[in-house]
Amino acid sequence: MSVQIAVVMGSKSDWETMQHACQVLDELDIPYEKQVVSAHRTPDLMFRFAEEAQDRGIKVIIAGAGGAAHLPGMIASKTLLPVIGVPVKSAALNGLDSLLSIVQMPGGIPVATVAIGKAGAINAGLLAGQMIGAFDRSILERLNERRERIKQEVLESSETLGADE
Amino acid sequence: MSVQIAVVMGSKSDWETMQHACQVLDELDIPYEKQVVSAHRTPDLMFRFAEEAQDRGIKVIIAGAGGAAHLPGMIASKTLLPVIGVPVKSAALNGLDSLLSIVQMPGGIPVATVAIGKAGAINAGLLAGQMIGAFDRSILERLNERRERIKQEVLESSETLGADE
Amino acid sequence: MSVQIAVVMGSKSDWETMQHACQVLDELDIPYEKQVVSAHRTPDLMFRFAEEAQDRGIKVIIAGAGGAAHLPGMIASKTLLPVIGVPVKSAALNGLDSLLSIVQMPGGIPVATVAIGKAGAINAGLLAGQMIGAFDRSILERLNERRERIKQEVLESSETLGADE
Amino acid sequence: MSVQIAVVMGSKSDWETMQHACQVLDELDIPYEKQVVSAHRTPDLMFRFAEEAQDRGIKVIIAGAGGAAHLPGMIASKTLLPVIGVPVKSAALNGLDSLLSIVQMPGGIPVATVAIGKAGAINAGLLAGQMIGAFDRSILERLNERRERIKQEVLESSETLGADE
Amino acid sequence: MSVQIAVVMGSKSDWETMQHACQVLDELDIPYEKQVVSAHRTPDLMFRFAEEAQDRGIKVIIAGAGGAAHLPGMIASKTLLPVIGVPVKSAALNGLDSLLSIVQMPGGIPVATVAIGKAGAINAGLLAGQMIGAFDRSILERLNERRERIKQEVLESSETLGADE
Amino acid sequence: MSVQIAVVMGSKSDWETMQHACQVLDELDIPYEKQVVSAHRTPDLMFRFAEEAQDRGIKVIIAGAGGAAHLPGMIASKTLLPVIGVPVKSAALNGLDSLLSIVQMPGGIPVATVAIGKAGAINAGLLAGQMIGAFDRSILERLNERRERIKQEVLESSETLGADE
Amino acid sequence: MSVQIAVVMGSKSDWETMQHACQVLDELDIPYEKQVVSAHRTPDLMFRFAEEAQDRGIKVIIAGAGGAAHLPGMIASKTLLPVIGVPVKSAALNGLDSLLSIVQMPGGIPVATVAIGKAGAINAGLLAGQMIGAFDRSILERLNERRERIKQEVLESSETLGADE
Amino acid sequence: MSVQIAVVMGSKSDWETMQHACQVLDELDIPYEKQVVSAHRTPDLMFRFAEEAQDRGIKVIIAGAGGAAHLPGMIASKTLLPVIGVPVKSAALNGLDSLLSIVQMPGGIPVATVAIGKAGAINAGLLAGQMIGAFDRSILERLNERRERIKQEVLESSETLGADE
Repeated sequence: MSVQIAVVMGSKSDWETMQHACQVLDELDIPYEKQVVSAHRTPDLMFRFAEEAQDRGIKVIIAGAGGAAHLPGMIASKTLLPVIGVPVKSAALNGLDSLLSIVQMPGGIPVATVAIGKAGAINAGLLAGQMIGAFDRSILERLNERRERIKQEVLESSETLGADE
Repeated sequence: MSVQIAVVMGSKSDWETMQHACQVLDELDIPYEKQVVSAHRTPDLMFRFAEEAQDRGIKVIIAGAGGAAHLPGMIASKTLLPVIGVPVKSAALNGLDSLLSIVQMPGGIPVATVAIGKAGAINAGLLAGQMIGAFDRSILERLNERRERIKQEVLESSETLGADE
Repeated sequence: MSVQIAVVMGSKSDWETMQHACQVLDELDIPYEKQVVSAHRTPDLMFRFAEEAQDRGIKVIIAGAGGAAHLPGMIASKTLLPVIGVPVKSAALNGLDSLLSIVQMPGGIPVATVAIGKAGAINAGLLAGQMIGAFDRSILERLNERRERIKQEVLESSETLGADE
Repeated sequence: MSVQIAVVMGSKSDWETMQHACQVLDELDIPYEKQVVSAHRTPDLMFRFAEEAQDRGIKVIIAGAGGAAHLPGMIASKTLLPVIGVPVKSAALNGLDSLLSIVQMPGGIPVATVAIGKAGAINAGLLAGQMIGAFDRSILERLNERRERIKQEVLESSETLGADE
Repeated sequence: MSVQIAVVMGSKSDWETMQHACQVLDELDIPYEKQVVSAHRTPDLMFRFAEEAQDRGIKVIIAGAGGAAHLPGMIASKTLLPVIGVPVKSAALNGLDSLLSIVQMPGGIPVATVAIGKAGAINAGLLAGQMIGAFDRSILERLNERRERIKQEVLESSETLGADE
Repeated sequence: MSVQIAVVMGSKSDWETMQHACQVLDELDIPYEKQVVSAHRTPDLMFRFAEEAQDRGIKVIIAGAGGAAHLPGMIASKTLLPVIGVPVKSAALNGLDSLLSIVQMPGGIPVATVAIGKAGAINAGLLAGQMIGAFDRSILERLNERRERIKQEVLESSETLGADE
Repeated sequence: MSVQIAVVMGSKSDWETMQHACQVLDELDIPYEKQVVSAHRTPDLMFRFAEEAQDRGIKVIIAGAGGAAHLPGMIASKTLLPVIGVPVKSAALNGLDSLLSIVQMPGGIPVATVAIGKAGAINAGLLAGQMIGAFDRSILERLNERRERIKQEVLESSETLGADE
Repeated sequence: MSVQIAVVMGSKSDWETMQHACQVLDELDIPYEKQVVSAHRTPDLMFRFAEEAQDRGIKVIIAGAGGAAHLPGMIASKTLLPVIGVPVKSAALNGLDSLLSIVQMPGGIPVATVAIGKAGAINAGLLAGQMIGAFDRSILERLNERRERIKQEVLESSETLGADE
């Protein structure tokens, strides 16, 4: 299967967060590519990336950025592929700036926003999987197994509550 | 074409916001259903709805709610369909509570969150269209036309800037 | 005396906070049970738990969760027992998201919300004790002794103010 | 049945919000008293009220206040009865100050906090009912009927969605 | 004198705010152009505008936008001209989202951010004037007169304080 | 000179912050007393303290507290002495809750609020000194010297800027 | 008695708020002066005012301002008189910006900050009265009467609760 | 070339942040001076500095401060030179107070505000460079090279994404 999902991030330092999206895609066995694309430092690359993604067979774009996070929204303005935005935790405002910069898009250009930080990156991978899974039974199956697994983890964790003290 | 998208909301008062999602789906000519499903007042109905949606052929669920907005996240916990969450503007905190209650989901259960209020509802319709459009050329076409149209509106609006005074 | 109070939490990592509720119940000598019940990862278990709690003789439910914290409110939607919600401090937003997700419930389904983190967990234990104590003199007595004790601690701590430097 | 619940508020202007708690208590047929007790303008009255409430047969206290809202917490410091705090919407900060002043109590003295404004006042009435209902079948019955009724309202409201346009 | 300053805004509805920047430029007698350029709806136009501005003789760009306001930062990424960003008051969050989306730019690409709304638009005009005025005595002179005038207004307003009652 | 100022705090842990107020009073050579008085754990002591302060010759009260910080406002409700409130930094919300709980007092009962944490404690000491200094030349003199000293520190610190690298 | 208190404000539009401080001073029969002094538009006047206030016999300065409210803090930097800061409600951020700009002063230069808006202005007047009252029995007497009066108002308002419906 | 830019900061502790502005000016080879000027501790020095800057040949002023950050706005009130404000991260509120105190200036006196902390300081240096660069080709050239360099860094960082694990 060719690359289905592109994972992009505004800076190499975002990898610490965004790797969790990639790990989920690995688990789900969905081919993806990853790269640093900065809205502000490489705007032309960003536009080219966004323009060509659909023709290259990409089905969903995952974009992570922090602070005045323009990457997800700007990519969304240049493609009709679904764009998932991951607000990366920022130095001063803990990602509240990242979240608002990504989620408060004007009517017309949607970005599917997930939680700030690691939980959001994991969910970006899963959400991308669910979008493709809606049309691909085998991915749906793997998503189903993952859900079953985390359910079991909850049940087991409950057994040992307070036991380690 | 059978119903592709379900639009649900936590209370009838959310219709003022959520109707904008439905208008976009009308524009895109995507069949949808709409209903009030309250996480807190009709929890069993909500679970039944979420469990059956996939088998009924629904491809994407759009869920709007305000305040301690649990509807999108709880539906997401009961289905593998992509769930789009629309934070409805709330009475005291202007929708900041709605936004955080919807977007800050734990790793494992994603909700694709859009902006607070009307802009978010419009984008929920478009995002659902883009998810389906990734596998349906005719919808993609209509999305494309819509983008072209709003681009023209911007260009025209610029002509008359300050002219009405 | 049979189990009077159920302490549930959305994830094992919440135990660090929620153990303080259990310690208070131990002090007050009120029988309780504790378990991990995740609104998002084990929704059916959560509903079953909430449905059966009253018949099992539970009088008060204490539920702790962080981020988009849906556990207290969703349990509350499925039982008429009083539900006390403890907002667990979250990674990015310090528990402000947890607090708003728990406290901003719509009219109809109340959650008795306490402070973010450890202080809230302690108070959840005490509040549960007070609810039962309103109908049980011996618990009231122990609550009274506890208050007297913390009052004494304040008075004594005042004696040594600045003495350690 | 003698008065079971006391509804107090920091200022007469809080009545617009707090009347919704009283209406719920009327619906549930639970006898209650209501009065203005200001933490800051009538501190001695507040202390006397809090000290005597239990001996007067009060089972639960509902206290509403706005801004630097000290009433619920100070009453809680003077009684072992459960105190429910209602954050009243404030002029400048929309009740965020009221909420934090009420909910962020230190470990030792709990206040059962509900949502800002009208929804919170309704839920304060219901929560008080549930606390008493845990030991009174007939009140539980009425709470049950109320839940059934609001469930029906949701179902019916869904029928007419978008019909008025 | 040729056009020195370009005033752009993300939507025609921003004109209500941005006209105050234009009025100041009129007062200062600095030639400017104005147009609607949307980061999200007309991204290519935005890039072309930003790329060509310097060669067209523009000295400063004033860009106003609301919500997830990407216009000022994206223009800044495509030009070395100073860009002044005006956060327009938004529907739900009163412009806090606009402010953070504009001001929290990553190191490398600055945007000179001013206050939310009308005051910010006025100051954008003045700031642009001061930038040019640093190299143009006659503009500096007019800025000086304006300051003197608003100083006089303060002094006069003080005379009549409380006189109208 | 008899004790002029009382420094009280809600918990011994507030001493880390409040000691800075005491150090300033030591510097200014103003006699003061210090003690732990908890609004919630020792409410009667608090009232007694507030009632008697004026007769005991106290001229200004400095009160520090964190979270739902009721101490300054409740003392203010029981005395006509000026009360200075110091918001102590809190565990979850960094003192924003402390600040709002102290500063947002209703019309009628003022609290002179200073900054969150150490800077606020220092300023509480200085403000108390200024209140007394308005009627005591020697204290005013020492305040004046202190200002002169910190001015000198600024000037000297400027000399060595960047020198240590 | 000569003028004891100066009431200054950053703009004539602040009078709507600041008149409430003046009304309290009228009630307390404390002579005061009032004027518009803008930190930003009349900085030299502000410095001169602050420098001369003490020698002119002023005992307390009340300063109100909104937005980036620098007036109270800058006056405080130029005098050893106690300065009371009133955060005026601002257009976009409801006075949160005014509050933080006034209260978060660095250690060394205190401003006695009161609540945002009308309640804060009333309390500024009272706080000034209390500062002077600490050394003036007759003013203390009038403050005492005022407290007694608002206490009576609370008691009376309680009588008629819900009576008007 | 004589000194073009003055970098001032409210306290020596701001140097950790503000040195990044100086480093950028070093890179751009623009002569600058640096000093500690405190709005609150050295107000007269601040005014003198602001009054004389233009005559001394300064073209742009960069001012950094934290908390109730009055330095940039007060300097701006005393000069017609463009003033760039850098909000330094504060102890309790992470620089949100610094940001609002600097950016929310009233109409009439602009401050060009950049991001909180290090990124803001870097951008202050660049923005100053761009203001001068608009009239100086050689500086523009160096700005251009810097942009090219950070673009290359992005491209290279992308190559090694995830390679170090």
